[in-house]
Amino acid sequence: MDLEEKAAVTSGSSFWRSTAVTGVPDIMLTDGPHGVRKAAPGGGILDSEPATCFPPAVALGSTWDPQLARRVGEALGDEARAMDVQVLLGPGINLKRSPLGGRNFEYFAEDPLLTGVLATEWVKGLQSRGVGASLKHFAVNSQETDRMRVSADVDERTLREIYLRAFQRVVTQAKPWTVMCAYNRINGVLASQHHWLLTEVLRGEWGYEGLVVSDWGAVADRVEAVRAGLDLTMPGPDPDGDRRLVEAVRSGHLPESTLDTAVSRVSSLVRAALASRTDATYDKDEHHALAREVAGRGIVLLKNDLTNDGAVLPLGRHDGTIAVLGEFARTPRFQGGGSSQINPTRLDNALDEITALAEGPVTFASGYDDVDAAVALARGAAVAVVFAGTDRETEGADRESIDLPAAHVELIERVAAANPRTVVVLSSGAVLRTGPWDAAVPAIVEGWLLGQAGGGAIADVLFGRVNPSGRLTETIPLHLADHPSYLDFPGEAGHVRYGEGVHIGYRGFDARSQQVAYPFGHGLSYTTFEYGPATVTATDGGLSVRLSVTNTGDRDGREVVQAYVSLAGSRVRRAPRELKAFASVAIAAGETVEVELPIARDDLAYWDTRLSRWVVEGGTYQVEIGASSRDLRVSATATVTGDDARVPLTGESTIAEWLSDPRGAQALGEVFAALAGSGEAGVMAHTAADPEMLTLMGSLPLARLSVFAGEAFSPAAIEKLSAAVN
Amino acid sequence: MDLEEKAAVTSGSSFWRSTAVTGVPDIMLTDGPHGVRKAAPGGGILDSEPATCFPPAVALGSTWDPQLARRVGEALGDEARAMDVQVLLGPGINLKRSPLGGRNFEYFAEDPLLTGVLATEWVKGLQSRGVGASLKHFAVNSQETDRMRVSADVDERTLREIYLRAFQRVVTQAKPWTVMCAYNRINGVLASQHHWLLTEVLRGEWGYEGLVVSDWGAVADRVEAVRAGLDLTMPGPDPDGDRRLVEAVRSGHLPESTLDTAVSRVSSLVRAALASRTDATYDKDEHHALAREVAGRGIVLLKNDLTNDGAVLPLGRHDGTIAVLGEFARTPRFQGGGSSQINPTRLDNALDEITALAEGPVTFASGYDDVDAAVALARGAAVAVVFAGTDRETEGADRESIDLPAAHVELIERVAAANPRTVVVLSSGAVLRTGPWDAAVPAIVEGWLLGQAGGGAIADVLFGRVNPSGRLTETIPLHLADHPSYLDFPGEAGHVRYGEGVHIGYRGFDARSQQVAYPFGHGLSYTTFEYGPATVTATDGGLSVRLSVTNTGDRDGREVVQAYVSLAGSRVRRAPRELKAFASVAIAAGETVEVELPIARDDLAYWDTRLSRWVVEGGTYQVEIGASSRDLRVSATATVTGDDARVPLTGESTIAEWLSDPRGAQALGEVFAALAGSGEAGVMAHTAADPEMLTLMGSLPLARLSVFAGEAFSPAAIEKLSAAVN
Repeated sequence: MDLEEKAAVTSGSSFWRSTAVTGVPDIMLTDGPHGVRKAAPGGGILDSEPATCFPPAVALGSTWDPQLARRVGEALGDEARAMDVQVLLGPGINLKRSPLGGRNFEYFAEDPLLTGVLATEWVKGLQSRGVGASLKHFAVNSQETDRMRVSADVDERTLREIYLRAFQRVVTQAKPWTVMCAYNRINGVLASQHHWLLTEVLRGEWGYEGLVVSDWGAVADRVEAVRAGLDLTMPGPDPDGDRRLVEAVRSGHLPESTLDTAVSRVSSLVRAALASRTDATYDKDEHHALAREVAGRGIVLLKNDLTNDGAVLPLGRHDGTIAVLGEFARTPRFQGGGSSQINPTRLDNALDEITALAEGPVTFASGYDDVDAAVALARGAAVAVVFAGTDRETEGADRESIDLPAAHVELIERVAAANPRTVVVLSSGAVLRTGPWDAAVPAIVEGWLLGQAGGGAIADVLFGRVNPSGRLTETIPLHLADHPSYLDFPGEAGHVRYGEGVHIGYRGFDARSQQVAYPFGHGLSYTTFEYGPATVTATDGGLSVRLSVTNTGDRDGREVVQAYVSLAGSRVRRAPRELKAFASVAIAAGETVEVELPIARDDLAYWDTRLSRWVVEGGTYQVEIGASSRDLRVSATATVTGDDARVPLTGESTIAEWLSDPRGAQALGEVFAALAGSGEAGVMAHTAADPEMLTLMGSLPLARLSVFAGEAFSPAAIEKLSAAVN
Repeated sequence: MDLEEKAAVTSGSSFWRSTAVTGVPDIMLTDGPHGVRKAAPGGGILDSEPATCFPPAVALGSTWDPQLARRVGEALGDEARAMDVQVLLGPGINLKRSPLGGRNFEYFAEDPLLTGVLATEWVKGLQSRGVGASLKHFAVNSQETDRMRVSADVDERTLREIYLRAFQRVVTQAKPWTVMCAYNRINGVLASQHHWLLTEVLRGEWGYEGLVVSDWGAVADRVEAVRAGLDLTMPGPDPDGDRRLVEAVRSGHLPESTLDTAVSRVSSLVRAALASRTDATYDKDEHHALAREVAGRGIVLLKNDLTNDGAVLPLGRHDGTIAVLGEFARTPRFQGGGSSQINPTRLDNALDEITALAEGPVTFASGYDDVDAAVALARGAAVAVVFAGTDRETEGADRESIDLPAAHVELIERVAAANPRTVVVLSSGAVLRTGPWDAAVPAIVEGWLLGQAGGGAIADVLFGRVNPSGRLTETIPLHLADHPSYLDFPGEAGHVRYGEGVHIGYRGFDARSQQVAYPFGHGLSYTTFEYGPATVTATDGGLSVRLSVTNTGDRDGREVVQAYVSLAGSRVRRAPRELKAFASVAIAAGETVEVELPIARDDLAYWDTRLSRWVVEGGTYQVEIGASSRDLRVSATATVTGDDARVPLTGESTIAEWLSDPRGAQALGEVFAALAGSGEAGVMAHTAADPEMLTLMGSLPLARLSVFAGEAFSPAAIEKLSAAVN
């Protein structure tokens, strides 16, 4: 392969294909993540061949079920193989930093553990079919506003513990074939040119051996991208960039070995992809059924209050007339706009599916433009089901509000006034505020974007064919202004400050003890569960949490058991509780199951910025277990032995730090004693003994004492002192 | 002067004196800011000669009266001259970022305009007496935790608009003889070695010609400090540092001209200081009276609800027994600890002063340890006055809580239960939470730390000899966790993230529409004021706000009229309102005064980070005028012509930015038209016309199109395009 070929193979040959050169054929990479978006021949950039539109990640995430994520991955792998696609561009695992994030519908959660566990299984499922995943968008791509330029300004602890943590889990546990770099900058450096991110962290620390591909159009400078560790620039062709790469190697500006590394990663990917290529087909009906199953599991029953006639949900099949109100029941919102937009193999709507399941009459009004007609139907019905939501979410634009459109609010409020048995079904790619209408209705069903079979899934939940078990993966705030990200989303002038630090989502609401509409992890069932006492045991591997959960109702169901961990008096600022384990457990009516929630020791670690490594802090950890982050039923504690985290004493250590270390205190005491009585320098000698002086002087780095006390604290003297105590 | 002398003169010769060398005598610099703290000969580091302890800045700031600040500066100047002190180390103008800040009592406000206006007059007053001020701590010194090392990580707009703005005002308007660098780091660089801060901004942009002195012990590296623009390192002597300076010059590591600049600034300061040296005396009684006047004006009447017997305050002189409860009435908290701690010339207490003013009986119990006795006295009294507060605030340590001690809360609650006519007088250096006891009492007097005459001032306000006009310079939150700084104060591991950005204090509470206990600017009077309609006129100099205010009660009083400005639809994120002008106006009972509030055009500007300069944005500004930030009585608008702020179009400008500029849109349209039909590159041509495509592609910097559309967007082509449109 000559130098020109080496350069060419590190970019695409077209929008969706890599470049074939001597000895290296080309492969196809197409958009995911909730369907295979293979460009239609001769079509526009957004036209694609039909494929199953599975529920977007917002709904898949709400299942809290890794096995379901795996089955979706497998099904996507089968479709990709059938369409001769070698790499599917997903999963998207950025965190939902703000409810305004325009691409939240493509992401799983506001929590890195939940995101990482689900995405790991998705990738394993996809890759089990010989199709490569592309873990994206690496990293800190939490907004659409100015997405190609904006710098996510985020401190390292937050970066490590929150924004990189899901990537680290998926990379190390599922080994995705490719990782896709993000469009944005991180602390001023484009992700596509971020050597620390793409090479030091991803490969050096996490041991990643796959390929790094750019997001489409993310590369500003091919030479700097290759130098940073980016292997494949998409799309292409990019003859001008190829030429500059060649020149950079010829002029010695870029070592040829660096380019060779990228080339070898491309050819390894192509080899592996083509080796697993097979003829394949898939059963559209089976995949549609899976899409319906997942959608039903992703629906979250937010509220189901008792009315004078009992709970409205589930609907009885013989209850009388059901008024279905709102155009979304007939014309569903089932996915978002942009690169993930699928041309579905078929499309169900809730109106038809409700009609199919109901044995009584079903009436319908489109609602938003004919509120009077809808109200009239509601008045004459046994129950009213109002479909409401947002018009669209799309890649490329953040949302401007979390409020329902005014017409939808009016529809809900007037229907609810006409019929107290009103159910609201929401459709949107990210959370909507449930005020000011929440109190007016007894039941709310969060229906997200549910993919092509969502209409059936909504009917399944409404009629109780599926007992809801979906849980919120993001907090629903009372007001947008309450949100931890509110003051600096989406930033301005090319920068967005991650001012809330580690306090993303529920971590921030909990840290400030704020009221919320519905907390992270929340979701109701048609049955009830009782939690037995929990035990927590410290093991070499971390913590083992055990408890029994009983279905105390008369209907089979699933409970999502959640374990949140805290450490009182930690040396670093922590959220009041963090999700560290969960399980979605099927429990038959009246039965009791034993639930085990293992917590890996690594997941207890914080990132120590002084030591530049993960540290498990020793102490007594509290584990609270419950049905949501604010419905904690039982708790237990376990004592964990900490990692060594002593920071050596130096001249930059403060007097207080020296004095709080037994060896340091003794050494310093001797120096102070020798100084006593030597005039102003002797003032120092009193510091250790006098609390008031220690308050004033304790924060002084030892080396600064040279100004106060001369040679006793010269660099040489401090070096000797330090050597003696470390 | 030889090189060794040059080095020596740039550090102190002792704790409080500069170094005398050939041709340059030495001068004395001592702590302020609310009194002259001249070290007592032979005493410890905290022993000092008697001087008037004026109210600390927390109380002086609460007067909102620049003229009063000027008179205090003048009096301090007289005392300094009498004590042969040439530079008084004050004022402290850091902002109260968090209510936990341990040195908040030495600072004026959570608002930079209020701080800057008051400090400007203070400096003018002091320097009018021939004594130099030291404007401190430059800059972003908002906490005591890890104060010698911590890096205040703050974005440039926040730095400019919030944390540097008061410094800029005082430097340019009052020309302080010295500026004192802070201990902390700013974005990783020690303030004492911060060339950008000490030289580029302070001298280059603001035109400062005075001397920069270090805070005591702030210099870690003499050579780097001198290079950054620091002229005088304190304290001294520092022979080792002198030697390193000499070596740095000899080795060429530091230009001798740089050292010469520092030397010339020291000798200019010394010359000026000694030229204005005179024999002087001051009248201790007059200064005590001034201290009492200022203290009375700084007291804030938070609450004065009607009870069944009318308002409790002011107390009548013949009302019957007054039960004074709480040791602070007898043993006042009147200042904080640390470098500002004054040895007062005398010390009043509230118990004696109340007894002197009351004509009926006054009973007393120390309270905190003998609650039963206090309750018994309260039960037998016409009115109970409970003194409560915190034990101490001090330099060197941040507070851990904003709650009253539990014993004080118990005292208040039990006394209030025994006597509905209970007044609480608070003493503390920074705000205290008024919950959970607030609702139990009808009247709360915020008595801060009031200096040596505070006892009399409290009596003056209680009895109505002074009609209260003090106003909060910081928000009192309902809970500490509500505060904008809460999640990242005081930081950890050497860094504190200013995550709330420009939303310090009331700006943040307003931005999130949070409830507060008492808002910024709040303070009651014993009379009432009515606001007439306001007019706002745009002038070349800015805005002129005019209105009339009437004292509608039967008691003379002062109103602090406050003007807050907002700009709807601003191109940068702004707080909902910002204080831009204020006036403390004396208005006799029944009278009406015309108030003019000029707003300088400079004070309307935001810092544009793309253009790296201040920009006044054009548009219709709303000015809301009222008695607090949440008691806005009248408003008016004025249209302001903006500064030119066009950012030139380049290859880094996005497609959307090109298309939103008329010339850019035309130029780009022509390129797109030429590309139409050229295959995949032609996709671009549809972008301008198709809203969906524009959503997806609009955020792409133009230069990135080279990957999609080749030569049409090569660097040379874009340069040509840019030249044509800029």
